[in-house]
Amino acid sequence: MAIIHQVLGSPGRDNALLVRVESGQRVTRLLFDCGDGCASDLSLSEIQAIDHLFFSHCHMDHIGGFDSFFRCTFHRSSKENRIWGPPSTSSILHHRFQGFLWNLAGEMSSTWTVNDIWPSEIRRYRYQLSESFKEQHNAGVHARSEVVLDDDDFTVSAIPLSHHGPCLGYLVREKPSINVSTERLAAMGIRPGPWMKDLKTDAVATDVTIDGKTYALSDLRSELLTETHGDSIAYLTDFLLDQEAFQRLSSVLADCDVVVCEAQYRHADVELAKRNHHTTVRQVAELAAAANCSHLVLFHLSDRYTKPQWVAMLEESRESFSRTRFPVEWNL
Amino acid sequence: MAIIHQVLGSPGRDNALLVRVESGQRVTRLLFDCGDGCASDLSLSEIQAIDHLFFSHCHMDHIGGFDSFFRCTFHRSSKENRIWGPPSTSSILHHRFQGFLWNLAGEMSSTWTVNDIWPSEIRRYRYQLSESFKEQHNAGVHARSEVVLDDDDFTVSAIPLSHHGPCLGYLVREKPSINVSTERLAAMGIRPGPWMKDLKTDAVATDVTIDGKTYALSDLRSELLTETHGDSIAYLTDFLLDQEAFQRLSSVLADCDVVVCEAQYRHADVELAKRNHHTTVRQVAELAAAANCSHLVLFHLSDRYTKPQWVAMLEESRESFSRTRFPVEWNL
Repeated sequence: MAIIHQVLGSPGRDNALLVRVESGQRVTRLLFDCGDGCASDLSLSEIQAIDHLFFSHCHMDHIGGFDSFFRCTFHRSSKENRIWGPPSTSSILHHRFQGFLWNLAGEMSSTWTVNDIWPSEIRRYRYQLSESFKEQHNAGVHARSEVVLDDDDFTVSAIPLSHHGPCLGYLVREKPSINVSTERLAAMGIRPGPWMKDLKTDAVATDVTIDGKTYALSDLRSELLTETHGDSIAYLTDFLLDQEAFQRLSSVLADCDVVVCEAQYRHADVELAKRNHHTTVRQVAELAAAANCSHLVLFHLSDRYTKPQWVAMLEESRESFSRTRFPVEWNL
Repeated sequence: MAIIHQVLGSPGRDNALLVRVESGQRVTRLLFDCGDGCASDLSLSEIQAIDHLFFSHCHMDHIGGFDSFFRCTFHRSSKENRIWGPPSTSSILHHRFQGFLWNLAGEMSSTWTVNDIWPSEIRRYRYQLSESFKEQHNAGVHARSEVVLDDDDFTVSAIPLSHHGPCLGYLVREKPSINVSTERLAAMGIRPGPWMKDLKTDAVATDVTIDGKTYALSDLRSELLTETHGDSIAYLTDFLLDQEAFQRLSSVLADCDVVVCEAQYRHADVELAKRNHHTTVRQVAELAAAANCSHLVLFHLSDRYTKPQWVAMLEESRESFSRTRFPVEWNL
C-alpha cells in the first residue's frame, strides 16, 4: 500500500499532479488538472491508464493540456472515463468534447462521465463519442459528504477554495489496511493457511479449525489483525488563504502526509497574492505546520520570478516549515 | 519579396506549416493547421505575430494544438484575429473558445473572426472575449472565387479536397512586384527621384518633368517598369488523390514553387490510402511532376512506418519527382 505522486510540467510553466494509489492488488491513477504540456511527461500507456481526472477549476493554465490527454483516451472503452470538477466543469468539458470534427466517430464508442461537485451534491452527466458528444445526458444528482469518491482502496474529498470563483482542492486518503500479524501468528503457534482470508472478510462461519483445533474467528481477529494507517496526499492550487480558509484548511489537512501546494508569490508580494486570490510561500508553510503535515511540496511557481528567486522562496517556506521541497523531478 | 516556410512538429507526429510572406515592407504570417505540439516550435512573439490561421479540417491531429496557440493570442487586440476553414470550422471553434472558465474575461477584450469557406461563399462569424465567447455574431456572407483572401501582397486560394468530409488545401501566391529598372533608367539618362513613385501608382498627373524635360508617364511606365513573378506555396494534406482530383490539382498547382504535401503511405499501401482518403508518396510525386512544381516537401508522415521506411518513401517519391525533400528542420 502506498501513494506515489509525480508533479507534471516544468517550474514556472503549467503543472499537474499524477497520483498512483497502489493497493498491492491494483494501481489507481488520479490526475489533478491538466495544463499545457503536462501530459508529455507521461507515456501513452500511462495516460491511457488514468482512472479519474480532477480539475481544481477550468482556467486556461489548468485545462489547456486537456486535448493531449484526450487524444490518448477519447475512444477508451476498456475502463470508465471519469472527470470531476467544480460547477460548470461539465459545460466546459461538453464544449471541449465538441471541439473536433467527429465524422469518423460512428466507428468507435466510448462514454465520458463528468461530475460537477456542488457544495452538497454531485451532478453527473454522460457524453457519448458515438453521438459525436452532441448530447448531454443527465446521469443523476448524488448526495455527497466531504468525500466525493469512495473507492475500495481510497477516498477523495473535495476542499472548497476561493479563486475569484469556485475552485476545489482535493485530499486523497488510502483506507487503512487490515493485515494478519505474522509475529502474533507465530507466537500463538498457528500455521498460516487459506483460513486467514475469513479473518479479513465478513465470513459466514464463526469458527475455524486449524490443525485439528477450533478457534472462534472473533478471538482470532482481535488477536491477530493489525490496522495500518494509509497514506494521504492533498492537492491545493489557486486560492486565497485568508484567516477563515487557514482555520478550515488546518483542520481538513490535519496529519496529511504530503501537501502539494501552489507557490505563486514570495511573502513580500502578499498584497498581490490577496488581490489575485493566490498564496505566498510563507502562508502555505504556516498552513502545513498548523496542520502537522509530513511534507510540503511547492509547485505552480509564478514565472514573474527568476530561478534564484524561486530557490529563495523555498528557503522562505522552510523558515516556517522545514519539511518543504520542490518536486524531485525539477532539480531546482 | 519572398515566401519563407517552416514545417512545425516532428516526423510521424502532428504537423503544421508556418508561411511568412515577406514583402520588404512587412511580414505576414500564415499558419496552416495546428496539431498537438506544433506551437512549441515557435517563440511566444512569433505565435503572437501570426496573422491568419487556416485549417484544412478539424480532425484531432490538425486542431489538437489550438489551445497552445490560443494561450498566446486569446486576448490579442493589437491585430485582427482571423481563422479560416471548411464549413463547420466556426461551430467547432466556437466550442473551443468556450472550453475555458472565463470569469476574468471582463477585464480584457479581443475579437475573433472565423471564416467558413463554402464552395461559392464565405460565411463569417465574430466572437468576443468580453462576452466569454458565448455569442456567435453573424458577420455576413461574402462571395468568393478560388481566392478567399486577397491581401495587398498575396492571395490565398482554397482548394477543395476529399477526406471523408470537407477538407481544404491552400495555395498562397505573392502578387507580382512592379519595379523600376535602374538599368533602363541609366540608359535613358534620367536621374532617379521622388517622381518615380508616380510610376507605380495611378497618379492623377499624366506628365512628369525631370531636370527640365517633360515625359509622358505612360511612356515612362512601358519603358521602365518590370514585373517580377512572386513566389508561391501550396499546402495539401489529408485527401484522396483519385483521377478527378489529380487532373484538377495538376491545373490548380501549375508552376507552383513549393508544394508541402502529406506523405501518409508508401505506394505498396495504395489500397489503404484510398480507403482512408489519403495519398501515397508516388501519387503526390506524380502530381508535383504533372503540375511542373519546383519543389515537393513531404510531411505528415504516417507513424505506422519506421524511420528507414520513411527514408525509402522519400526515395520512392524521387523516382517520380526528383526535387522532393523532407522539411530541412527534420534531419531525416
